[in-house]
Amino acid sequence: MNHFELVADIGATNARFALVASGQTELQHLHILPAVDYDDLTQAVQAYLAIVEKPSLQAASIAIAGPVHKPVFTLANNHWQVDKAKVEQQLGCQTLWLNDFAAQAWGVTALDPEHQVVIKTGEDKPEENRLVIGPGSGLGVAGLVYNKSTWVPVIGEGGHASFAPGNAREMAVLGELLNDFEHVSVERVASGSGIPLLYAALAKLDGQSPQYTDAGAISAAATTDPLAQETMALFFGILGQAAASAALHMGAIGGVYLVGGILPKILSSMQDSDFVDRFCQRGRFRQYMEEMPVILSTDNDLGLKGAALALKNQ
Amino acid sequence: MNHFELVADIGATNARFALVASGQTELQHLHILPAVDYDDLTQAVQAYLAIVEKPSLQAASIAIAGPVHKPVFTLANNHWQVDKAKVEQQLGCQTLWLNDFAAQAWGVTALDPEHQVVIKTGEDKPEENRLVIGPGSGLGVAGLVYNKSTWVPVIGEGGHASFAPGNAREMAVLGELLNDFEHVSVERVASGSGIPLLYAALAKLDGQSPQYTDAGAISAAATTDPLAQETMALFFGILGQAAASAALHMGAIGGVYLVGGILPKILSSMQDSDFVDRFCQRGRFRQYMEEMPVILSTDNDLGLKGAALALKNQ
Repeated sequence: MNHFELVADIGATNARFALVASGQTELQHLHILPAVDYDDLTQAVQAYLAIVEKPSLQAASIAIAGPVHKPVFTLANNHWQVDKAKVEQQLGCQTLWLNDFAAQAWGVTALDPEHQVVIKTGEDKPEENRLVIGPGSGLGVAGLVYNKSTWVPVIGEGGHASFAPGNAREMAVLGELLNDFEHVSVERVASGSGIPLLYAALAKLDGQSPQYTDAGAISAAATTDPLAQETMALFFGILGQAAASAALHMGAIGGVYLVGGILPKILSSMQDSDFVDRFCQRGRFRQYMEEMPVILSTDNDLGLKGAALALKNQ
Repeated sequence: MNHFELVADIGATNARFALVASGQTELQHLHILPAVDYDDLTQAVQAYLAIVEKPSLQAASIAIAGPVHKPVFTLANNHWQVDKAKVEQQLGCQTLWLNDFAAQAWGVTALDPEHQVVIKTGEDKPEENRLVIGPGSGLGVAGLVYNKSTWVPVIGEGGHASFAPGNAREMAVLGELLNDFEHVSVERVASGSGIPLLYAALAKLDGQSPQYTDAGAISAAATTDPLAQETMALFFGILGQAAASAALHMGAIGGVYLVGGILPKILSSMQDSDFVDRFCQRGRFRQYMEEMPVILSTDNDLGLKGAALALKNQ
């Protein structure tokens, strides 16, 4: 085989791997390995390298949901421990480690039109700041700033900004959650793990017995169960408000990009929800929000493509 | 005179002007002109140029609290209309127009140790992201990202992020304010104009008659009047929480810089307040916040210095 770079996007459930020709970003030999089948990242890397017949690697770029500045760390939402030196030794090449949302942000800079769903139209400003946000197990948030012909990702922890209720019902929910938590973050409610918490809080407020404990079941029950229905309505409304606050912090007049695996699966519920209304509900800043396009990415490989772009722009 | 660049920092109350030698940032011939004495910016510029005996200008950099991307705009908080073409013609040189908080952010990149008050210690990480935040008439918010040996300001509208109450009393205040506003932003409460609103909301909640209507009087009365005292306590607590949420969005592990004219005047009240506690009150993200230093800038010329630095880094 010729000279390749390895790119990886490591989440809690799946480890995605691909190769790109050196300096390119087109993905080749893409394989998705379930994390549960391997003890740690070195085992998964070994399995992938065996599949692609051990190519000669020029470099690697690994996007992963963990504190990548540390030499050894555990993933937030699975059992893997990552020892960066061991992985680099195994790969035998220089390796760029990046936050999973840094990769999503890089991916957004080159998002294909075919993988875009317009949630809300706005003004096209391709060289202005953008926001990248996506609920998964948590809530990932990143900015993109255009500076002197290149993109600069702004990698923070915006999911841990404070939950800001916008009406009496949401304030009641916040009051419930403050009984259990010192601080209620946006991620605590506007995420896959937030859905069951919202549902339980609403059940408690209404004196009902909760029937469901996981996000998928609550989302599926939303057509028949009033409490599940209200939960999903709250989820989308809170997500709209949180996306707006994050977009204001980033000055994202270039657009808001919704990423990750959850929203494409519940797209029609999202389109029927208050998401856009809550996004725009900003008093004298309504027009600022109305001019901002909101785009949903349906590209499952955005993180891998972003890992390749990050390497190219390093 | 030799070759100079003109720098300006135009606020609602004062128009600050200075000269710097071309390519330098040391301020010379600094003059502060009260906005109320002039009909518009061209008049103030004319007055300044007369004072400094019309130097030969190589370039100019004007920081101003207005929508600087527009050719003609009015200032948010005074009577001036700005026609950029007229000002440029008057100056006779290329002019950089920048948001006032872009200038504050640039200023922070070179803040003198003598103008720093440590509000909260933390870990020194001079090349990591920073947050710049400051209550004035509104609440200015900007980020600073370090990228390939240069700083990139993140200019947004973080003051218009949603107010997130952290306890029952703040939720009651939010409930009051939601009677009057479609959306309650952080700036609506954590700013100079927010102090009278907080005071009035507390008075209403307690069934008392409000005695004061301006921020200065409320701040001054805080030692004797319980309601004024609670207002200032709320103000600092909310500001702490808002600074933390903004810092999380920016990933500001390089530190939080408090800027503007208000906080240095009420520094001892701030040091006695819950500001730092609320800043750190983040559940499992407490350590992340505790490692982040918080520095107050006491430099009145930070915007002017920043305007010079922006020009140099253009």
